[in-house]
Amino acid sequence: MILYTSPGTIGLATQIALEESGLDYEQVTIDFAASEQLSEHYRRINPRLRVPALDVDGEVLTETQAILVYIAQISPGSTLALPVDPLAFARIQSFNSYLGSTVHVAHAHGRRGTRWTDDSDALAALAAFVPVSMAHCFDLIESTLLKGPWVHGSSFSISDPYLFAISQWLEGDGVDVSRYPQVVAHRSSMLERESVRRILGKD
Amino acid sequence: MILYTSPGTIGLATQIALEESGLDYEQVTIDFAASEQLSEHYRRINPRLRVPALDVDGEVLTETQAILVYIAQISPGSTLALPVDPLAFARIQSFNSYLGSTVHVAHAHGRRGTRWTDDSDALAALAAFVPVSMAHCFDLIESTLLKGPWVHGSSFSISDPYLFAISQWLEGDGVDVSRYPQVVAHRSSMLERESVRRILGKD
Repeated sequence: MILYTSPGTIGLATQIALEESGLDYEQVTIDFAASEQLSEHYRRINPRLRVPALDVDGEVLTETQAILVYIAQISPGSTLALPVDPLAFARIQSFNSYLGSTVHVAHAHGRRGTRWTDDSDALAALAAFVPVSMAHCFDLIESTLLKGPWVHGSSFSISDPYLFAISQWLEGDGVDVSRYPQVVAHRSSMLERESVRRILGKD
Repeated sequence: MILYTSPGTIGLATQIALEESGLDYEQVTIDFAASEQLSEHYRRINPRLRVPALDVDGEVLTETQAILVYIAQISPGSTLALPVDPLAFARIQSFNSYLGSTVHVAHAHGRRGTRWTDDSDALAALAAFVPVSMAHCFDLIESTLLKGPWVHGSSFSISDPYLFAISQWLEGDGVDVSRYPQVVAHRSSMLERESVRRILGKD
């Protein structure tokens, strides 16, 4: 497998999952500063022009929610093992879907607003609102969704790298993290994991 | 199970899946015209204040991507049966995630822009751009993602009701559907299914 990703992006969730899985993979960094994700070369890999993309024997998988479940399914003996009970799996899927379709989207209005408007004043208005919309999301995560110590309670799951990757953005998005002690504790717990330490070069 | 939904929303995907599943369920319509989704009553059912929400023995599941997989997993003998191969399941998940986190989000900028700004000029700019962003999404669906006759080729899957529900919005979003003959053919195929005919009252 080859993971295409870039630092600071949601690709971090997949990187952590791959490290947790114990599976072999190669990593290719896409240089966002040089807009490499928009190049013809990368368009042939992922026509959606985003990261992460996971090449599995020549087939390219996209979308973090799909990739995380795929990695978990092919590493059933790892920390990522999925519950057999459909309702328990649905809880994981529901949380991850909320991250992908609401929280990540709120963040994206800061620097990727051209997906939704080409008006420069509107782009500025969208960026200015990110602290509000991200805080709204994390109010719900802190109060209701994050059970602690891991997202779904006592067992680590694929929701944890996903939340961790997104919560890395809070300070840059102008959110006061002191309002979210459970989220901060979750970040600390993640930083102690071998998988995360390897990726962040803290070994 | 109790499905909370409202006409014209993405809840249609779940309605169709429930009809396809053969499972028993009750349906409760939430009156968006009266802003019932924002009521204290509904907040107790789904604090995210959106539809669909599926009450399963008192536990409320949200997020279409999670609900569709859940329904498919508990009705393995139905038309919704999921592939056992992880990569085949990942293709379904990837497509559904694209619908949830990109296509539905593009549409939502038309009438739900207050999720991302409180500036009235910016709201107007977002609404005006919806035909562009939705066409961008459907260019990719038409050219690459929709295999035909069903989303993933010859077999019907949970991706089909999801695409159908979103493609119902195209005309209202100012998109010229004649550019998308495969999508139009998919809508026609869906309209011929018993499940959809029952819901749309065409029996």
